[in-house]
Amino acid sequence: MPQVSNKGRQMPESPIRKLVPYAEIAKKKGHKVYHLNIGQPDIKTPKVALEAIKNNTIKILEYSHSAGFESYRTKLAVSYKNHGVNVNPEDIIITTGGSEALLFALGSTMDAGDEIIIPEPFYANYNGFSVASGVTVVPVISTIDEGFALPPITDFEKLITSKTKAILICNPGNPTGYLYTQEEIQQLADLVKKHDLFLIADEVYREFTYDGDKHYSVMNVPGIEQNAIMIDSVSKRYSMCGARIGCIVSKNKEVMATAMKFAQARLSPPTFAQIASEAALDTPQSYFDEVISEYRGRRDILISELNKIEGVKVASPKGAFYCIAKLPIDNADKFAQWLLESYDLNGETVMVAPAAGFYSTPNVGLDEIRIAYVLKKEDLVRSVEILADALKQYNSK
Amino acid sequence: MPQVSNKGRQMPESPIRKLVPYAEIAKKKGHKVYHLNIGQPDIKTPKVALEAIKNNTIKILEYSHSAGFESYRTKLAVSYKNHGVNVNPEDIIITTGGSEALLFALGSTMDAGDEIIIPEPFYANYNGFSVASGVTVVPVISTIDEGFALPPITDFEKLITSKTKAILICNPGNPTGYLYTQEEIQQLADLVKKHDLFLIADEVYREFTYDGDKHYSVMNVPGIEQNAIMIDSVSKRYSMCGARIGCIVSKNKEVMATAMKFAQARLSPPTFAQIASEAALDTPQSYFDEVISEYRGRRDILISELNKIEGVKVASPKGAFYCIAKLPIDNADKFAQWLLESYDLNGETVMVAPAAGFYSTPNVGLDEIRIAYVLKKEDLVRSVEILADALKQYNSK
Ligand SMILES: Cc1ncc(COP(=O)(O)O)c(C=O)c1O
Ligand SMILES: Cc1ncc(COP(=O)(O)O)c(C=O)c1O
Repeated sequence: MPQVSNKGRQMPESPIRKLVPYAEIAKKKGHKVYHLNIGQPDIKTPKVALEAIKNNTIKILEYSHSAGFESYRTKLAVSYKNHGVNVNPEDIIITTGGSEALLFALGSTMDAGDEIIIPEPFYANYNGFSVASGVTVVPVISTIDEGFALPPITDFEKLITSKTKAILICNPGNPTGYLYTQEEIQQLADLVKKHDLFLIADEVYREFTYDGDKHYSVMNVPGIEQNAIMIDSVSKRYSMCGARIGCIVSKNKEVMATAMKFAQARLSPPTFAQIASEAALDTPQSYFDEVISEYRGRRDILISELNKIEGVKVASPKGAFYCIAKLPIDNADKFAQWLLESYDLNGETVMVAPAAGFYSTPNVGLDEIRIAYVLKKEDLVRSVEILADALKQYNSK
Repeated sequence: MPQVSNKGRQMPESPIRKLVPYAEIAKKKGHKVYHLNIGQPDIKTPKVALEAIKNNTIKILEYSHSAGFESYRTKLAVSYKNHGVNVNPEDIIITTGGSEALLFALGSTMDAGDEIIIPEPFYANYNGFSVASGVTVVPVISTIDEGFALPPITDFEKLITSKTKAILICNPGNPTGYLYTQEEIQQLADLVKKHDLFLIADEVYREFTYDGDKHYSVMNVPGIEQNAIMIDSVSKRYSMCGARIGCIVSKNKEVMATAMKFAQARLSPPTFAQIASEAALDTPQSYFDEVISEYRGRRDILISELNKIEGVKVASPKGAFYCIAKLPIDNADKFAQWLLESYDLNGETVMVAPAAGFYSTPNVGLDEIRIAYVLKKEDLVRSVEILADALKQYNSK
């Protein structure tokens, strides 16, 4: 039978997927694998959200409004205001995860062939959404030596062309855990105003800040109301990744009108998940206090244990639940594969995400890995123990 | 404050949305509006699906597999086989509605700048998905005089260029209600094989056929296994539009591998909705028998009533729950607006979808409307009564 050649676009492979077959090998050997590679929290979803689903009285499961339930958007705006972010219901479109909000943001600010500047390392799926939208990612490098702080603004300016339409940041950052300071956000604000660009901020980890540092939203910067677009999600906030609810937020009416056309084309966000998400807004503050304190504890122990390993350098994260560690090895792709395929410590091993997949520039970050601290503390300690032993063995091969 | 110019792509407006402000006017006047314009069924969702949601025992609402629950895909493949469509679980990726399946299909077969041929009139959101994907729609016209049968294959061939990558059909058709015969599908199959194109068939209305005509799926055509892509959805089948579950189905491994990368980028389809959709596979046949018989009755009465109006021509639908009617007027856009803004019959009026929005060629179908028969029979009869009176008044203005 003749094979029809694939004519689709060149979607990038996720940096973690490549390792999945090797994880299968480890499991087949009966090895226990500690997953340091994924961003799926192990935290319980708030009861109030799950109960709302069980108590729903739907008889006909209809399309909702394309922008999401009016009642949800209204309550969500109140919640933003309570958290110091000045947003009205009409500035919000409910989306199918932050993922869809990102797609809408790209489509509503860029035509096919346009360029978007993103500090790297960045959330790898930004690549996928860009390819899907036919837009080009232009990376600007941030380094572990600077703790993944904002690159100098002159580095951005060098990359701006007539095709540049937006800058995309993730704050706090996946995979870096870096939390931009108010000064850094202001520098970006001045830049986008000067060059008439959009500033898209992926703030899905906004609550997850430690050390008392406050998250500074792009929605709060005076003077860039027309440039700023915020991406948000219930996935991590309420450990509700499977709901698939997020939102795109902006005060720019033209952007929102275009985003609304994307929303209308796909009809509506999922109804059950909207019910859960609306109810989740009533989650008591004590839930977040516990969750943040849990993550802070995990971070502290993870970083202190990592710092004990000779030759390992880690950028101490201020937010989200990821960190990047530089290892005393040549190639983290090979090392990660070896950990699963050929190594174990008393029947246990770890799965890590090689960081090269989070860089768009080739051959950068080859000796770095991303670690997600979504495991219990004792598992994190054990994981680092395994990593330390593995590095020793790997380097004495 | 300086306005940032919208730099997004030119997403088309839905043909129905333009009328929404006029519907508001009618409602403000206290007029009752019969909605002949929408595809939201009034049919109850199967109990088995709704119960599954209420009985879920989720504690952590995690991401599911990007291709959807393994258990759901397995059961779904069995269900397809039971309906005579030979599909295996690995040929299926669960999507967020048929809408997302369409986006994946375009992205997995076409690069930005490529062309897709679609018989018009077609589901208006095909335009939106094409613009979102940066691909160009090339329409081939089908006419009410031919009952919206497949246009001659030579008409397709005239439009094929080096950029043509696929043909997209909707079967049975929204907005036409036309059901392609096996011969027509075979003609398309020969065409795509000859020119090495993909044949994407949107079969979300596959069950909704009347008159005993059997739906013939592109998945059943021998020899085009590598060309055929099927789009499906639970939205209409189970009156579960708000679930947002559909799927993309193909035996072409390369296409599915690319579609899988799109699926991975957006992480997963909604979990609650998958639970409901998997359970819905156990819906008893009696449910469908009742629903189909209800729609058949509605269609029969709608068409016979429409045919009584002088000057109205209607293409009798064989499937789905839409029909196109040609009215004795110049411009259905203006007429539809007038119906809402300036007309009523004893405080009642109708909202219809002007068909021009379903054509991609300008100035075609200007005197046509689409009617969805998702209302009770007595409401349909009353709606046509109102339409008849309105036409008389409109034409004697
Ligand atoms: C930085 C970032 N943005 C967006 C997302 C998308 O999340 P979702 O689509 O579940 O809201 C994720 C998920 O891991 C993420 O890490
Ligand atoms: C022809 C056709 N295809 C696809 C869809 C998309 O439906 P959904 O995304 O709800 O599965 C619709 C909805 O009306 C439709 O009419």
